[in-house]
Amino acid sequence: MVVERRMAAWIVVAVSLFASAPARAQAVAPHSLMPVPARVVFEGGSLPIDATFAVAFEGARDPMLARAAERMLLRITKLTGLPIVRSGGTVRLTVRCAKPASHVPSATDDESYTLKVGASGATLIAPTPYGALHGMETFIQLIEQGPNGYVVRGATIQDQPRFPWRGVLIDACRHWVLPDVIKRNLDAMAAVKLNVLHWHLSEDQGFRVESKVYPLLHERGSDGLYYTQEQVRDVVRYAADRGIRVVPEFDMPGHTGSWLVGYPWLSSGKGPFEIGRVWGVYDPVIDPTNEKVYAFVERLIGEMTALFPDAYFHIGGDEVNGKQWDASPAVVAFRKQRGMKTNEDLQAYFNTRVSGMLARRGKVMVGWDEILHQDLPKNTVVHSWRGQKSLADAASQGYQGILSNGYYLDYIWPASQHYAVDPMGKDAAGLPAEAQKRILGGEACMWSEWVTAETIDSRIWPRTAAIAERYWSPATVTDVPDMYRRLGAVSRHLDAAGVTHRSGYTAMLDRLANGGSTEALRGIVDLVEPVKNYNRGRRAKFTSQMALNRIVDAARAESDEARGFGQLVDRFLASRADKDARDAIVAALTRWQVLVRDVQPAMGAPLLQEAVPLVHSVAALSGFGLRAVEALEKKWRLALTAEETEAMTRASAPVADVLLMVAPHVKKLVDAAGK
Amino acid sequence: MVVERRMAAWIVVAVSLFASAPARAQAVAPHSLMPVPARVVFEGGSLPIDATFAVAFEGARDPMLARAAERMLLRITKLTGLPIVRSGGTVRLTVRCAKPASHVPSATDDESYTLKVGASGATLIAPTPYGALHGMETFIQLIEQGPNGYVVRGATIQDQPRFPWRGVLIDACRHWVLPDVIKRNLDAMAAVKLNVLHWHLSEDQGFRVESKVYPLLHERGSDGLYYTQEQVRDVVRYAADRGIRVVPEFDMPGHTGSWLVGYPWLSSGKGPFEIGRVWGVYDPVIDPTNEKVYAFVERLIGEMTALFPDAYFHIGGDEVNGKQWDASPAVVAFRKQRGMKTNEDLQAYFNTRVSGMLARRGKVMVGWDEILHQDLPKNTVVHSWRGQKSLADAASQGYQGILSNGYYLDYIWPASQHYAVDPMGKDAAGLPAEAQKRILGGEACMWSEWVTAETIDSRIWPRTAAIAERYWSPATVTDVPDMYRRLGAVSRHLDAAGVTHRSGYTAMLDRLANGGSTEALRGIVDLVEPVKNYNRGRRAKFTSQMALNRIVDAARAESDEARGFGQLVDRFLASRADKDARDAIVAALTRWQVLVRDVQPAMGAPLLQEAVPLVHSVAALSGFGLRAVEALEKKWRLALTAEETEAMTRASAPVADVLLMVAPHVKKLVDAAGK
Repeated sequence: MVVERRMAAWIVVAVSLFASAPARAQAVAPHSLMPVPARVVFEGGSLPIDATFAVAFEGARDPMLARAAERMLLRITKLTGLPIVRSGGTVRLTVRCAKPASHVPSATDDESYTLKVGASGATLIAPTPYGALHGMETFIQLIEQGPNGYVVRGATIQDQPRFPWRGVLIDACRHWVLPDVIKRNLDAMAAVKLNVLHWHLSEDQGFRVESKVYPLLHERGSDGLYYTQEQVRDVVRYAADRGIRVVPEFDMPGHTGSWLVGYPWLSSGKGPFEIGRVWGVYDPVIDPTNEKVYAFVERLIGEMTALFPDAYFHIGGDEVNGKQWDASPAVVAFRKQRGMKTNEDLQAYFNTRVSGMLARRGKVMVGWDEILHQDLPKNTVVHSWRGQKSLADAASQGYQGILSNGYYLDYIWPASQHYAVDPMGKDAAGLPAEAQKRILGGEACMWSEWVTAETIDSRIWPRTAAIAERYWSPATVTDVPDMYRRLGAVSRHLDAAGVTHRSGYTAMLDRLANGGSTEALRGIVDLVEPVKNYNRGRRAKFTSQMALNRIVDAARAESDEARGFGQLVDRFLASRADKDARDAIVAALTRWQVLVRDVQPAMGAPLLQEAVPLVHSVAALSGFGLRAVEALEKKWRLALTAEETEAMTRASAPVADVLLMVAPHVKKLVDAAGK
Repeated sequence: MVVERRMAAWIVVAVSLFASAPARAQAVAPHSLMPVPARVVFEGGSLPIDATFAVAFEGARDPMLARAAERMLLRITKLTGLPIVRSGGTVRLTVRCAKPASHVPSATDDESYTLKVGASGATLIAPTPYGALHGMETFIQLIEQGPNGYVVRGATIQDQPRFPWRGVLIDACRHWVLPDVIKRNLDAMAAVKLNVLHWHLSEDQGFRVESKVYPLLHERGSDGLYYTQEQVRDVVRYAADRGIRVVPEFDMPGHTGSWLVGYPWLSSGKGPFEIGRVWGVYDPVIDPTNEKVYAFVERLIGEMTALFPDAYFHIGGDEVNGKQWDASPAVVAFRKQRGMKTNEDLQAYFNTRVSGMLARRGKVMVGWDEILHQDLPKNTVVHSWRGQKSLADAASQGYQGILSNGYYLDYIWPASQHYAVDPMGKDAAGLPAEAQKRILGGEACMWSEWVTAETIDSRIWPRTAAIAERYWSPATVTDVPDMYRRLGAVSRHLDAAGVTHRSGYTAMLDRLANGGSTEALRGIVDLVEPVKNYNRGRRAKFTSQMALNRIVDAARAESDEARGFGQLVDRFLASRADKDARDAIVAALTRWQVLVRDVQPAMGAPLLQEAVPLVHSVAALSGFGLRAVEALEKKWRLALTAEETEAMTRASAPVADVLLMVAPHVKKLVDAAGK
C-alpha cells in the first residue's frame, strides 16, 4: 500500500516533468523491456551513457557484484560500440545492496529491486545481490540510441518476479552440448531474469558427467562427450555468479541405456547394451528389485549431490514402458511378494527409496509427472510435461510443482503460443491459495534430438525470452503484438550477451551455399520454419551421428517475414482500400521472384538439393499472390487450374522438413480472390 | 631431387586413377587451400568424413598434439555440422611426428610436413609438432562437400614455409583488445600458418601489462584496461600451443606518454602527463641522459623478459620527434659532452644500452627502421615500416629484418594490394644470397586507432590470409583472381576457427538499424568500404573514447560486390556482345534501386543520419548506370547534365568516412556511353 502511494506520487512527478519538457519528449516512446517489470514510470530527462560510464557499490560488499559490474561494462561496450573504461570513470549507476549473497542462490531468495534513473545518475536498490543482478539487466535493456548518443531515460522501476522457479532445461544427452555453450546460455538466461538451469545429464543416448565412483558410466556411455567434474563445478559457479541455480537431472529407472553399456548388471533385461543412436522410448530399465542396484544408486547419488550444491535433485522418472519388468520372472515375483499391483507401484517403491537417499543428503527430489503416487513423500516436486491439469492435481494433493507442458522448445512453436501458456492455468484457478502457492513456476525445455552446440541457441532464443516474461511479469501482461515488438529488441540484447542465435544463421547459410552467395538464399530461408511438434525425421531413418546442417537446421524457429506478411494480408483483406498493405504485399511477392532468380547459382550445392522443390514453390506462390491481388483489385474472380491448385497444396506441405510459412497467407489471398 | 622424382611418380598414379574414375571425377576442381602448399598432387579417390572421424598419433608423444586433435575435431564439427565423437571413433588421420615440441616455438623450427590422403585414411608426417599443426590445418581446409556427405580428396601434399617469420602485429594500446579477442585471432593465425604474434603493448594511449615492479605504469596508464601477468602467461601458452611465438613490444624512448602519467620523472620534458586520447606523434619522450632512467628500464625489462619467453624483444624506437630533447638544456649538454651530432646518435646510445640489457637476458632486440645506426650490434633485427629498400639496406649492412611496409591493415587496402608486396622485393633481388637470408619475413600490422575488440577481426580477416600466403607459399604463387576465389573459402574456415569478421557484420548492422530491418541496409553497406590510408577522422575531432559504431566501422574492408560489379563492367565494355555481363549489370543496378526504396524505414535511426547522402548516391548511380547501359546498347551518346555530373562526383567522394566502391565502375560505364 505504501508502495502504491509512492507510485502515485511518482506519476505526479512524471506528469509535471513531462509538462515542462520540450515538445519532443512529451510523446513517450514505449519501452523495450523484457520481461516487463512489475511497475515502470518514465519521468522525463535522460542519463547519457558514454565511455566513462562507471558503476559503484554501497552497502554489502559482495565480489559477485563487482564481477557483475565488469560484465555489465563489457555488455554495454558490445551493445553500443563505446570503448568503456574499467577505472577512472564517472559513477553513473550506484548499486545499494542490503546483504551479500548466500553460497549459492536458492529458491527462496528475494529477487526484487528498485531502479531510479535521473539525468545525472541512477540508483539501484535491492535486498539481495540477486535482485541487484536483475536490476542491472533492466538497466542494460533501458539503454537506447538518442540523437546525440546513447542514453537511459529517466524512470523509476519497482520489480519482482511472479514465480520463484523460472527455468530452462538443456538436454546435453541426445546431442552433446559443450560447456561453453551452456555458459553462454546462462548469460542469456540471466539477461531475461531466468534463474534455474535444469541440466539433463543422463539418457539412453549418453551419460554426460565424469563419475569417479563408476567411471564406466562416462567412459563407455558417452562417446567421450562428457563434462569433467571440474567443468561441472565451473558451470555451477558460473551460474551461481549470475543468480542461476543448477538442478541436475539423472533420469532413472528408465532412460538409463547409457548406464548399462558399462554396467549391464543394473538392468532388468539382458545385455549387451549400446549407446542409443535413435530417438524414442527404449525398453532397458534399471532393476528395482536388486539390492545391489540401490547400493550403486546410493553411491552415485552421493557423488553427484556433492557436485551439485542446489537443494533440488531431479531423478526424471518418466517413460518407463515396463516391458523388461514384465518379462523378468524375478521382477514379477518381487511385485507379487510385495503385493504391488502395477509397475507404477514398483516404480513408486524405487522412487521412495531414492527420495530417502536424497533426503539424507538434504536434497528435495524432483521428478516428471509419472512419479506422482500416493506413497511419495509430500516434499517431492512434480515436474509436469503432461499439462496444467496434472500440475494442479499434484498441487491439490500437497505437492509442489513446475510446468513444462506448453514450453517444449523442440516443438518449434511460435513465441506467442508458448506465451499464452500460464503455469497458473485455469485448472489451478479453482485451487485454494495455499495450493496455488505450490505452483513454483515453469521450465522451457530444450530437448536435443534435433539440435547441436551449433544450433541450440537458435532454438532457445529469442522465443524463451517470451516464456521468461510469462514466468516473471504480472499475469496481466499478455499483449502479443507488443511482446513481439519487445522480443525483437531483446533478441539483439541476447546477442550482445553472447548467444549465437543471430550470428549462427549467417554461418549456416554460408555452409549451405558451399561457396556460393548467401544473399538470395537468406531471403528464401527467411520464409521457412522447421516442421512443428515431432514431425521431423519421419521421412528418413535418422541416427544421432548424422549432421544437423540442413536448411531445417539453419531456418529460424519463427519467420518474422511470414508473420509480417500474414498481417499485411489480413489488413488488405479486411480493407481493400489499404493501399499501404497492398503495396507492401506486391513488393514482397515481387521480391520473392527476384530471390528465386538470384538463388539459382547457389542451388547446385549438395546440401541444397532437397530444397529445390521449395524454391519452385516460392516461385509459384509469388505468381499466385500477384494474380490474386490483381483479381481482388479488379474484382475479377481468380480460378486456379487443377495443376496450379496442386502446386498451391504442395507449397503448403513440408519439404526437406521445413514449412513455407507464407503459403497459408498466399492461400488466403487466392481463396479470397476465388470467391 | 628425390622428392621431384617421387612427385613425378605420383602424377602418373594420379593420371591413371583419373582414367579409371567415373566421368564426373575427371574434371579436377581446383583446391581452396590458403596458403597454397609448396606441392599438391590430387590422386583420385576420396576419404569420407563422418561423425566417427578420429585422429591417432605415432612417433613422439606430445600433449600439444593431443590438444590440437581435440581442437581439430571441434573445428570439423563447426565446419560440417557433424556431431563428431571424442572417443571410440575410426582412425582416419594418423599423425607421425619425429620429436616433441620445444618449450616454446622458436624462429628456427622445422615447420615442414607431408600429408597423404587415400580413400581409407590419411597420413601426416612431420619432423616437429609445428609442422604437424600446419598439416592438420591443411587437412581441415581440404574437407569439402560431396553429393553424399563430406570428403577429403585423395592427394599428396609436401609443404614448408618460404619465410620463417610470418607475423601479425596487434596494437592493444590505441584501443583495448580483450584477451579472448587475442586468443581467437591466434586460432585464426594458426589456421593460415602464421607463426608470430607481435603484441604492441605500450603506447602514449596506454600501458597494457600489469607491472609488479612499477605498478603505476598500468594503474595510471591504462584506464584499468590492461592484461594481468596471469593473462599474459595464458596468452603466451595459448599461442605456443598453436605453434605461434609471441614477441612483445614496449615502445621506447618515444610513444611512452602512458608511462609518464605514473612516473613523470622519466621524461625529458615537464609534466603532469595524461593518457593520450588522440592519434598522432606525441612530444613526450624518455630522458636518455638520466642514469635512473636506465635503472628503471633495466628492472622493467627484467620483469617483462621473464613474462615473455620468446628469444626476441621489440623495443619500438620509432617516431621520436626530438622536440623535448632539443628543449632540454641537460640533454643538449649531454649530447655535446659525448660528441653526439644528432638526436639519432642520442637514441642509438639509448638503444645500445637497452640492447645490452636484453643481451644479458639472452634476448635479441627488434626495433623499427629508426633504430638502424652504425653503433648498433649486428644481431639486432630491423623491422621496416618504411619499405623494402630500408629492409634491403639493413640486410646488406648485416642486420636481419622483417617487412611491414605494404602490410598495414589499417590502410584498408584490398587484399590484392598487400598480396603484391613481397618481403624479398626488387631492392633485395640484387643482394648476395647470404644477405637475402637475413630477410626473415614480414608482419601484417593491425594498428588500432580505428578498431575495437568488436571490429578488429573484420580488419584483420580475411585479408591477412592473403598476406599469410605471401609469407608461406612459393614466390611464384601470384594469381590474383585465384587468390580471391580461395580467400572466400578460407574466410569461412576462419569463421569456424572463431574470429567474428563475418558474424560481427550482422551485429553491427543490427545496431545501426536500431530495431529496423537490416536486410536492405546490408545491401547498401555491402557496396561501401572505409576510406583508405589515413583519411579517416580528418573531418571531426576524434578521441579514443568515442564509439566505433558507425557505418564505416560496420563496412567490410573489401566489398566483394563492388569488385564483382567492376569485373562485369570491364567484361561488358570489352565486348558489348557479352549478354551475361550486361544482364548481370542491369540486375545489380535494379537491385540497388530496390535497396534504396527498402532501406528508407531504417534510415531514421540516429546512427544512420550521416549516411543519408550515401543512399541518395546509390539511387543516382543506379539511374546513371541503367541509362549508360541502354545508351551503349542503342549506340546513343549519353550526356549527363551539370547537376548529374555533380551527383556522379559526389558519389565518388567519401561520405561518413566510407567510399561507395561501385561509383568508379558506374563512372566507367557513363564515360564509355558518353564517347
